[in-house]
Amino acid sequence: MKKIGILHGPNLNMLGKREPELYGKTTLAKVNRDLQKVAKTMTMELTILQSNHEGELINFIQKQVGKIDLMMVNPAALTHTSIAIRDALLLLDCPIIEVHITNIFQREEFRQHSFISDIATGVISGFGVEGYFLALQAAKSILKK
Amino acid sequence: MKKIGILHGPNLNMLGKREPELYGKTTLAKVNRDLQKVAKTMTMELTILQSNHEGELINFIQKQVGKIDLMMVNPAALTHTSIAIRDALLLLDCPIIEVHITNIFQREEFRQHSFISDIATGVISGFGVEGYFLALQAAKSILKK
Amino acid sequence: MKKIGILHGPNLNMLGKREPELYGKTTLAKVNRDLQKVAKTMTMELTILQSNHEGELINFIQKQVGKIDLMMVNPAALTHTSIAIRDALLLLDCPIIEVHITNIFQREEFRQHSFISDIATGVISGFGVEGYFLALQAAKSILKK
Amino acid sequence: MKKIGILHGPNLNMLGKREPELYGKTTLAKVNRDLQKVAKTMTMELTILQSNHEGELINFIQKQVGKIDLMMVNPAALTHTSIAIRDALLLLDCPIIEVHITNIFQREEFRQHSFISDIATGVISGFGVEGYFLALQAAKSILKK
Amino acid sequence: MKKIGILHGPNLNMLGKREPELYGKTTLAKVNRDLQKVAKTMTMELTILQSNHEGELINFIQKQVGKIDLMMVNPAALTHTSIAIRDALLLLDCPIIEVHITNIFQREEFRQHSFISDIATGVISGFGVEGYFLALQAAKSILKK
Amino acid sequence: MKKIGILHGPNLNMLGKREPELYGKTTLAKVNRDLQKVAKTMTMELTILQSNHEGELINFIQKQVGKIDLMMVNPAALTHTSIAIRDALLLLDCPIIEVHITNIFQREEFRQHSFISDIATGVISGFGVEGYFLALQAAKSILKK
Amino acid sequence: MKKIGILHGPNLNMLGKREPELYGKTTLAKVNRDLQKVAKTMTMELTILQSNHEGELINFIQKQVGKIDLMMVNPAALTHTSIAIRDALLLLDCPIIEVHITNIFQREEFRQHSFISDIATGVISGFGVEGYFLALQAAKSILKK
Amino acid sequence: MKKIGILHGPNLNMLGKREPELYGKTTLAKVNRDLQKVAKTMTMELTILQSNHEGELINFIQKQVGKIDLMMVNPAALTHTSIAIRDALLLLDCPIIEVHITNIFQREEFRQHSFISDIATGVISGFGVEGYFLALQAAKSILKK
Amino acid sequence: MKKIGILHGPNLNMLGKREPELYGKTTLAKVNRDLQKVAKTMTMELTILQSNHEGELINFIQKQVGKIDLMMVNPAALTHTSIAIRDALLLLDCPIIEVHITNIFQREEFRQHSFISDIATGVISGFGVEGYFLALQAAKSILKK
Amino acid sequence: MKKIGILHGPNLNMLGKREPELYGKTTLAKVNRDLQKVAKTMTMELTILQSNHEGELINFIQKQVGKIDLMMVNPAALTHTSIAIRDALLLLDCPIIEVHITNIFQREEFRQHSFISDIATGVISGFGVEGYFLALQAAKSILKK
Amino acid sequence: MKKIGILHGPNLNMLGKREPELYGKTTLAKVNRDLQKVAKTMTMELTILQSNHEGELINFIQKQVGKIDLMMVNPAALTHTSIAIRDALLLLDCPIIEVHITNIFQREEFRQHSFISDIATGVISGFGVEGYFLALQAAKSILKK
Amino acid sequence: MKKIGILHGPNLNMLGKREPELYGKTTLAKVNRDLQKVAKTMTMELTILQSNHEGELINFIQKQVGKIDLMMVNPAALTHTSIAIRDALLLLDCPIIEVHITNIFQREEFRQHSFISDIATGVISGFGVEGYFLALQAAKSILKK
Repeated sequence: MKKIGILHGPNLNMLGKREPELYGKTTLAKVNRDLQKVAKTMTMELTILQSNHEGELINFIQKQVGKIDLMMVNPAALTHTSIAIRDALLLLDCPIIEVHITNIFQREEFRQHSFISDIATGVISGFGVEGYFLALQAAKSILKK
Repeated sequence: MKKIGILHGPNLNMLGKREPELYGKTTLAKVNRDLQKVAKTMTMELTILQSNHEGELINFIQKQVGKIDLMMVNPAALTHTSIAIRDALLLLDCPIIEVHITNIFQREEFRQHSFISDIATGVISGFGVEGYFLALQAAKSILKK
Repeated sequence: MKKIGILHGPNLNMLGKREPELYGKTTLAKVNRDLQKVAKTMTMELTILQSNHEGELINFIQKQVGKIDLMMVNPAALTHTSIAIRDALLLLDCPIIEVHITNIFQREEFRQHSFISDIATGVISGFGVEGYFLALQAAKSILKK
Repeated sequence: MKKIGILHGPNLNMLGKREPELYGKTTLAKVNRDLQKVAKTMTMELTILQSNHEGELINFIQKQVGKIDLMMVNPAALTHTSIAIRDALLLLDCPIIEVHITNIFQREEFRQHSFISDIATGVISGFGVEGYFLALQAAKSILKK
Repeated sequence: MKKIGILHGPNLNMLGKREPELYGKTTLAKVNRDLQKVAKTMTMELTILQSNHEGELINFIQKQVGKIDLMMVNPAALTHTSIAIRDALLLLDCPIIEVHITNIFQREEFRQHSFISDIATGVISGFGVEGYFLALQAAKSILKK
Repeated sequence: MKKIGILHGPNLNMLGKREPELYGKTTLAKVNRDLQKVAKTMTMELTILQSNHEGELINFIQKQVGKIDLMMVNPAALTHTSIAIRDALLLLDCPIIEVHITNIFQREEFRQHSFISDIATGVISGFGVEGYFLALQAAKSILKK
Repeated sequence: MKKIGILHGPNLNMLGKREPELYGKTTLAKVNRDLQKVAKTMTMELTILQSNHEGELINFIQKQVGKIDLMMVNPAALTHTSIAIRDALLLLDCPIIEVHITNIFQREEFRQHSFISDIATGVISGFGVEGYFLALQAAKSILKK
Repeated sequence: MKKIGILHGPNLNMLGKREPELYGKTTLAKVNRDLQKVAKTMTMELTILQSNHEGELINFIQKQVGKIDLMMVNPAALTHTSIAIRDALLLLDCPIIEVHITNIFQREEFRQHSFISDIATGVISGFGVEGYFLALQAAKSILKK
Repeated sequence: MKKIGILHGPNLNMLGKREPELYGKTTLAKVNRDLQKVAKTMTMELTILQSNHEGELINFIQKQVGKIDLMMVNPAALTHTSIAIRDALLLLDCPIIEVHITNIFQREEFRQHSFISDIATGVISGFGVEGYFLALQAAKSILKK
Repeated sequence: MKKIGILHGPNLNMLGKREPELYGKTTLAKVNRDLQKVAKTMTMELTILQSNHEGELINFIQKQVGKIDLMMVNPAALTHTSIAIRDALLLLDCPIIEVHITNIFQREEFRQHSFISDIATGVISGFGVEGYFLALQAAKSILKK
Repeated sequence: MKKIGILHGPNLNMLGKREPELYGKTTLAKVNRDLQKVAKTMTMELTILQSNHEGELINFIQKQVGKIDLMMVNPAALTHTSIAIRDALLLLDCPIIEVHITNIFQREEFRQHSFISDIATGVISGFGVEGYFLALQAAKSILKK
Repeated sequence: MKKIGILHGPNLNMLGKREPELYGKTTLAKVNRDLQKVAKTMTMELTILQSNHEGELINFIQKQVGKIDLMMVNPAALTHTSIAIRDALLLLDCPIIEVHITNIFQREEFRQHSFISDIATGVISGFGVEGYFLALQAAKSILKK
């Protein structure tokens, strides 16, 4: 049983409730449930947190140190501003996958830079919530090696 | 009765207590009381939060979604650094007014850029705590249309 | 009786006649009349000029030196290009309020910088012609001190 | 039967033969064969081209206009330099997925900018040749809508 | 008895537990205990906080206003991103010493700029946890004047 | 009969009199006469102004609002500095053609940027006074549509 | 009989077939036929090439060395990226006219710079395929001198 | 008898009346009278203009073409913004001396660049109104050669 | 017998035929013959290609993988624009020498950056065709080690 | 007995004699004597040089190669401009401590970059001459390891 | 008797011997003699140094501290690179005049910035060796106040 | 007999003694002896200086004015910082060859710019001390013309 941490950054709790043209209509609760289901079929166990507090996200990452095989992160707006989350992720010694629901390269210039990408194994951006499931597939492939 | 949200960012709880040459001598509690009074005369109802935590500010904004007619924000230092607050404000579908007590254009270069201004209806900067009362006037005018 | 100078920059004579989606439908003549009315109720006297010539605007400012208690300026396009108007304003020894009808932070990048803001007491931007009336309110508050 | 175009840019013909620490040990021929196999199981038909000539890549894209349901591209080094390939892709009216074998965000600064990302639906970067298979999954999901 | 505040920023709670090649093997608890011991010999009293929450760090600083003779800060990742902590420190009217365990000038470019340095009395960077003890020495020297 | 406005910016009154190696030997008076002649053969009527005053150029443009079918502009040095002329041109609702006698791309770097080009239909640069006649041809073609 | 070379860059073979709102509905074949017709009336002889290969464009230019009186170029996307085409054009000792169908100053920032403009006699941009005919007029005028 | 043109830019008519700490207490009228006196002793004849209108300054320069032996300019704020004045000065075929009363290198960054300096023979900056008299000395020396 | 690959980029086929003041009067054919002669005296065998097609240059480099002891490249204009050639050269596991006929540091700013220099052993620039012969000398010295 | 080199850059010979508000009132001679005294108590031996000549500072560093256990440097103004001193320091194979008397982060922008910091073990800035004594403490701690 | 220090930077010893089109034909010895003569007529005493060593120039400036009434400097190439000379000049408490023989604003971009101008009273540039004599005049005027 | 000056900049006296992985193991003395030997076989006479003092290097260059046929320079760290050496070299009227032992394009960004390259005939970089001998060959070839 592989253990995967999943981190959802600020405002992702509103997923499916607002701005559906950007983020789609599926709620985060539904995404998390579906991820859990798919994960089971891959003999993976998921630990998931969403928070609007950078500090809680850092605490969550620190708690996963030594306990997970892979971390999947969508730090949302903090992707572009939080070196503290980068530093927390650097404490892990497992692969990291960065996911973005929207294609950040089609948006404002300040969303073009990520403090996470260069410490991640890979990045998936622009496929809506499907991106999380692609990331699970990618995780499976990475953990096989 | 129009409903207005008011958000005060980090360190504004110290208003009137420190650096009076920059921020004046009126405390935040007094400003809030006076705003409530003036609002009543305009048949407006105010919901106000000050916090030093970005996460609490985001939570506050999310809770106002669908409940308020206009949001008045002074994100203080977070004006210049928080894309997460910008994203939370984007969840609202009401006008936003940005207020700054000091004239940010007279201060350090890093205070010249705001992550909020281009999603706000308007900006009021440099008039001390009077700026909040001007914003109430502006809100009244905006909500008339 | 407080004396206030008001300066409208290039193309503001076309206010209300063109691009109403940006600038609204009220003409400058009407704005000026309404400002005069409101000013009276505040025991203020207004001296107003609109010009498409930078030189006339400078002459106007120079003439106000020593005669006014506060200058309200909307230098329009010259906001972003005229150091000469800045220099003229520096000759005054009264407070300056900068007003913009549109929210300049939502427009082209070259409209993001103002040669006036850092020598003004405060800035009001994005509230349509209402901005001038907010500025009168602000003026009243400033002149009280 | 959905039709998918796949474009491999310069030097990808050497895949699996050189720099395995960066690009892995699988040859392009094998990747293409495996993609064909997986595509069949998804009732997709693939048309694939690798070329070291920008002109041939443009010709290939032009030929797909009106014939394919989705284009998957890994323009390799041309990602960062070819506006001509961008222009060719703009001729298509189907979704585009951009794939990179390596995590371009961990490499030289000049590989951080893509002329394709902002016209693509989504981007997958850093998962080795597995990235192509994730892209097939993503394609399936996109074409369902 | 001189009173000194000490602030440790995000992830410093992991000191000594992870990335010892960068940060050394001593835990934060041990550092704090040793600082307390040395402080006693200098007739200094220390109030110490570590937090992963920017908001708590701000609260801590605000509580020290008027109570301490000197503030020693290692805002870690927030050094480079938090104007809110800068603003909180500006509320103090005592000297500030900035400490970094690693030599930030040998690290990523985004760690080269500090929002604290220009409001601090002095900066000590790169000496490992020894930096905190050098800062105590420096504090003693500053408070003598 | 199509009506065309033609605006010549500062120093173009010296055309043909100074710096012939840059601007040629034909005077502006002759150019204007020849333009009138050619315009007649195309059933076009020209209204022409040259001025060294930005304000007069703005006044001229404002007067053409609603009266002309196309505006041809060579704002000369003001091309690179005048947002006020740009704003005046934005008041028109007819096509704009930008003409430069010299090839501005061969000259000083500060002549490489135009505040007009992105609001013009097209730009003709470098063909000497012939450029005006090419612009008449272009105007004819645009007005046919 | 004057000889003119005409070079059409990548993707211009799709002219009239795709993106008509940008490039119009006339095909390149028709444009070339019409140019030949007009050229005859001006006693000019045209040699025309379109290619999606930079190398073929360079070969074409090299072959015209010493054989043509003027080169008309629309290098399309290569305008902004190809120093090699610039170098080939530098081999010619006849005037060069640069033509763009769209107004490149209204498009993406990376289309604002041309590697050709500063070695061309003049530039015509934004008049649709009419631009080629204006260039023929310009050529006639240039060759008269 | 050598003929010298002298041009004073915007706001210099207020010389001696405002901001004496920057510009001194001597009025422009007095400076001009004294310059005339000194000029006479050097057998020079001065033609002097001050204007707040860029257009009038340009007209003045154009009128001096062919009539003066040297032009002395202090374009004040227009130094940093007016390419039109530069272009007018380029029409002259006599030496140009640029004078600034204040040391522009001690002032705002936007005053560090001059559109005149690279077409002037020399620059004198920072010596107060004495700078004009130094420029007369310099003129004498230049005209001797 | 050491094997050396030599690659000449776009437009070098015109060597000796055009712009002799920049590139000299010797043809490429003569340079290649002379290089072959000198190479023999050094017991080196040369494989040489000139092409105006980036794709052919890449193919040529790929074919040399594992067959040559050193690659000498003058990618001409592609030096500054082609990451694809850089990537092809990275496939080699032998030293690379970069040669430029002209001194690229005396030319346009866009010729100051090379995508090859940081992966080459050394660079020789500005000595005319003699540079190739110096490079042969350098190759000899490198291959001795 | 540990051997320490100490280098004082240009103008530090004036320490204590000029600009005491920036640099304090202690002379360099006194600082050096006190450092010698403290060093003795730590069984360290100091070799000290101050020079206003970059060349002499380089010679001094070169002479210490292989003879010292640690180098303490305050290159003063040369910190920001001398790559030659950086290169000399790179010849050493002992730790380097960089000391600045003033807090360089509070001064001109050109003092924010150091050519030494990224090759030093650590940096101490802003504590006045006390900084040298803190550096001795740091040296002791470094040499213990 | 006023005392003036004069400092000539590197390569000025070659004045009059090389590059006369830039620097004129008068030797430095002659300039110095003539300056001495003129100075006498103004009851000034000059102490002059030319050196190619930055260190000697610094020593010279330090020696003048407290002994001179005004320093005239032409640091030549060091103007643009030496913070150490700036620091030495900051030790003086008398006015500084900066002189350049050539008009540095007509030369390479790296000569456009001076480390001296913002700490000088005034700057004279471009008048050949005459600039030194203008500076004497300026000195006289400054010392009168 | 041709006369060649050779200049070695700061720290090159340590050649062969330190950092052999960068600079090789041959001492400067040996390089100079070998250069003298090879020069003799080419009927060249060498005058060589190494210095750590910029001033001595300038003096050396000035002394060669009019006495040498070619100058070979390796200004080491001063390449990137010394305009004074550039100015001294501009006094020469013979060709200049710039040599660097290491490939400066593989090193820190601040070593990518040379103040010498654009005034040199050619540049040789990255071939170790062999670079000097290649430069002798180049010198021979240059002096033949």
